[in-house]
Amino acid sequence: MTYRLFYSPGACSMAAHIVLEDVQADFTLEHVDLAQGANHRPEYLAINPKARVPALGIPGQARVLTELHAILVYLARQYPQAGLLPHGDPLAEARCHEWLGWLSGWVHGTGYGGIWRPERFSAETAHHEAIRSHARRTISAACQVIEQQFADGRRWALPGGCTVVDPFLLVLYRWGNRIGLEMRKDCPAWTDASLRLAERPAVQAVLRREAVSLDG
Amino acid sequence: MTYRLFYSPGACSMAAHIVLEDVQADFTLEHVDLAQGANHRPEYLAINPKARVPALGIPGQARVLTELHAILVYLARQYPQAGLLPHGDPLAEARCHEWLGWLSGWVHGTGYGGIWRPERFSAETAHHEAIRSHARRTISAACQVIEQQFADGRRWALPGGCTVVDPFLLVLYRWGNRIGLEMRKDCPAWTDASLRLAERPAVQAVLRREAVSLDG
Repeated sequence: MTYRLFYSPGACSMAAHIVLEDVQADFTLEHVDLAQGANHRPEYLAINPKARVPALGIPGQARVLTELHAILVYLARQYPQAGLLPHGDPLAEARCHEWLGWLSGWVHGTGYGGIWRPERFSAETAHHEAIRSHARRTISAACQVIEQQFADGRRWALPGGCTVVDPFLLVLYRWGNRIGLEMRKDCPAWTDASLRLAERPAVQAVLRREAVSLDG
Repeated sequence: MTYRLFYSPGACSMAAHIVLEDVQADFTLEHVDLAQGANHRPEYLAINPKARVPALGIPGQARVLTELHAILVYLARQYPQAGLLPHGDPLAEARCHEWLGWLSGWVHGTGYGGIWRPERFSAETAHHEAIRSHARRTISAACQVIEQQFADGRRWALPGGCTVVDPFLLVLYRWGNRIGLEMRKDCPAWTDASLRLAERPAVQAVLRREAVSLDG
């Protein structure tokens, strides 16, 4: 049972990579070089017509599993002993999906999508700078919402412990640094939680393997 | 145990409304008039700082549950006998989340968000028309992806039967008509599945109560 994770270093696929490592799954990495446009080549479109990462190849399945949210749920369910997604408590489970939905759709999709992929929103390249500026404000506001969640000193996004939300938040924390936000200064509680999460051996291994650092 | 659904007629909250009706939950409706900007008033922001619908008030919970994806998961888990979200089959469960994540983040967030809320992407009102045109192309392409899924004559989004994905797809089908796409002509298989879903008494009740029709 060897999974294949189609990923790009530092992309949101890193959250799936951390979970695979954390649950000690048997997996191989398939590098899709977004910077080189490898995700738009026919070979990759044949695998994932959405042209995105992550995608998870599952033995015996003709179609890869797409959408980070879905991959995280799948891995959490395949490795229930890791306790990364509540089970048997509808509200606790739903609070996880509430985070994942907002992080995926709003913070990543609208926020970082606007900064790194303005062409998803307007074909007019002359408009892209305004889209980027607006997205930057969206992200700054979202970072403050996240910071407020951690302001009570919690270590994890949800009170019950580490879930699949936390590695996704770690990716977004890193992206804040990448776009030049002052994460340590403006988001001290989130920084603290991120640095503690980064101590986990699984996270260390992934940062090394993807050759990225939390500082962006 | 009376839930409170904060909704606006025809908004994506309609999917949650259909599920509440379908599982015969005890609920009341709280109309948030998006057209009048009621979602941005202090009274509503005190309930849901995200200023969006749907939000679900749950007895005993100080915070409403937000994000349609999360509300659908919660209701499906609270009413497991309805079988609206796979349980015990990680891949089947993940395929549901794959649909929900894509429909929420891409089709609704980037697609319809661009058409109806271009101010989420650029503060320059002069750019909004280009954002709308682009979003329309995004939606047309997404409709074709959905149509291809139904082209094998399936009745439901997922092979196992009706899930929470189907009422969400019904909302998006209706929105296609609303923005003037030729849904019957260009998406015949999806139209067929939508019309059959609309025969369910729960859907009929919701369409009447929200005073909307599938034709937009």
